[in-house]
Amino acid sequence: MISLRARLVRMMSKQYFKRITPDTDVAELRKTWDELTSNLKTAPGVRRREATVGDITCEWLVPDKCDETPVILYLHGGIYMLGSAHTHRRMVSFIARAAGMRALIPNYRLAPEHPFPAAIEDATLIYRKMLEQGIAAGRMAIAGDSAGGGLTMATLLSLKNSGDPLPAAAVLLSPWVDLAAKGETLKTRAGVDPWFDPDNMPEMVRRYCGNRDPKAPLISPLYGDLSGLPPLLIQVGDHEILLSDSTRLAERVTKTGGSATLQVWPEMWHVFQYFIGQMPESAKAIADIGSFLKKTVTA
Amino acid sequence: MISLRARLVRMMSKQYFKRITPDTDVAELRKTWDELTSNLKTAPGVRRREATVGDITCEWLVPDKCDETPVILYLHGGIYMLGSAHTHRRMVSFIARAAGMRALIPNYRLAPEHPFPAAIEDATLIYRKMLEQGIAAGRMAIAGDSAGGGLTMATLLSLKNSGDPLPAAAVLLSPWVDLAAKGETLKTRAGVDPWFDPDNMPEMVRRYCGNRDPKAPLISPLYGDLSGLPPLLIQVGDHEILLSDSTRLAERVTKTGGSATLQVWPEMWHVFQYFIGQMPESAKAIADIGSFLKKTVTA
Repeated sequence: MISLRARLVRMMSKQYFKRITPDTDVAELRKTWDELTSNLKTAPGVRRREATVGDITCEWLVPDKCDETPVILYLHGGIYMLGSAHTHRRMVSFIARAAGMRALIPNYRLAPEHPFPAAIEDATLIYRKMLEQGIAAGRMAIAGDSAGGGLTMATLLSLKNSGDPLPAAAVLLSPWVDLAAKGETLKTRAGVDPWFDPDNMPEMVRRYCGNRDPKAPLISPLYGDLSGLPPLLIQVGDHEILLSDSTRLAERVTKTGGSATLQVWPEMWHVFQYFIGQMPESAKAIADIGSFLKKTVTA
Repeated sequence: MISLRARLVRMMSKQYFKRITPDTDVAELRKTWDELTSNLKTAPGVRRREATVGDITCEWLVPDKCDETPVILYLHGGIYMLGSAHTHRRMVSFIARAAGMRALIPNYRLAPEHPFPAAIEDATLIYRKMLEQGIAAGRMAIAGDSAGGGLTMATLLSLKNSGDPLPAAAVLLSPWVDLAAKGETLKTRAGVDPWFDPDNMPEMVRRYCGNRDPKAPLISPLYGDLSGLPPLLIQVGDHEILLSDSTRLAERVTKTGGSATLQVWPEMWHVFQYFIGQMPESAKAIADIGSFLKKTVTA
């Protein structure tokens, strides 16, 4: 059974998501999310540092004594239109501390101003800049939530297609990997998902990738060639319409001979790790991410 | 048996290729090729027009009454380091006339100044600009020789990965699609190929893609997912070390259910179509390209 605090968070967080409809102004949504997160603190002992990589503003989150550690390249979520280092700083700082690694959150370009493939171009550019700066691929992980999880997968496929060395591991929190929306839980979980209405999805997809085929591998990595990837950790809630994005992803990766550890969290919802400090389930999940990264990424 | 004129061309053209070694200065090779082609004329009745697409200078070759026809996007060869609209103008003007379509040759960025993936970025950008300008995908073909043939295939894979509508057809003249150099004819044809020494290949590959995995699909499309592509016409000489790039490509495409027409020309060598006007084999091959494009591309 989930904690009482989780019940409260689940109920209260509904309010923001009611606003996300095809009619809502994107600027308004960004502003509200920024305000909602303006008082959130980073994990104790984790320092912030601004950086610019290429033309992209980024934020480093560096736990104590982690200046020279491996790097987590963290790709934030927000349906490819919202989110930033600001909105995700707190969660990522806890992930960095749990893993004992520094993390970099880029403010990659967002739709609708910068539709597909801008985000993937930015993410691969930043990864390659890390390589150029002498960080070995085996000392990097890529992680992301929701659209950032899809972006993590698209970045892996893009790097693989280009013959770049791949990172040692990837972590996906409720990844959005099927923008063609063929998963069965879009129906079966529509009643229990506290946040999302599947009917809003086609318009969100259109804003990101226009008239392109949504089944294209770089848009919906679920349909790509998933062989030859590093080990994945996938965490997803049992009460979210995107559950079957995760289950199908894990299934397809393991079918190619790859490694995908899937955790389905009972009664949890989309990117529940975000509420770290407010409910014990988030802390437990982030501790698991830390263990996974310590195990898979070369120190 | 090949024509007497072909024998002469084959013998005389050897001279230039003797210069292409890992030690040769690229600027010198470019200059020599420019000079060798400075007197070549375009096909009668084909007009030239300069254009800039994005930041890329291009040349249109427009046969009479072909201002509104479908478009051949032509990607020239030259081991990703040489070649231009200037060096390929003549051959492409004859291809355009044979097809009754206008052709666009972009001066895509070249290695070693602009290594992988610059050329693919330029080619996909130009293709997308054509779409934006209202030319339907079904009214476009992509064609290329040698490295430009590999680039044609990489561009198709890149467009497919991104969910762009694909062109109606592609034409590949002696395409270089395996930079990992695993084809058997690298050995079996080394004695008869008048131009190329397989020992020079690794250094050429390094200049294009550095330390990347040469088997990556965008570097060596032979190893990519070749399903879902438009019909291909592949022309190759029986006397060239890259013969098995073409034979394996045709085999793999047809295995996925795709259509690939392979023509292996007896005793011909690398991109023998280039010598149009000097030997009858080139004219015959270009006539076949014209027929193929008329059949596959919507008028």
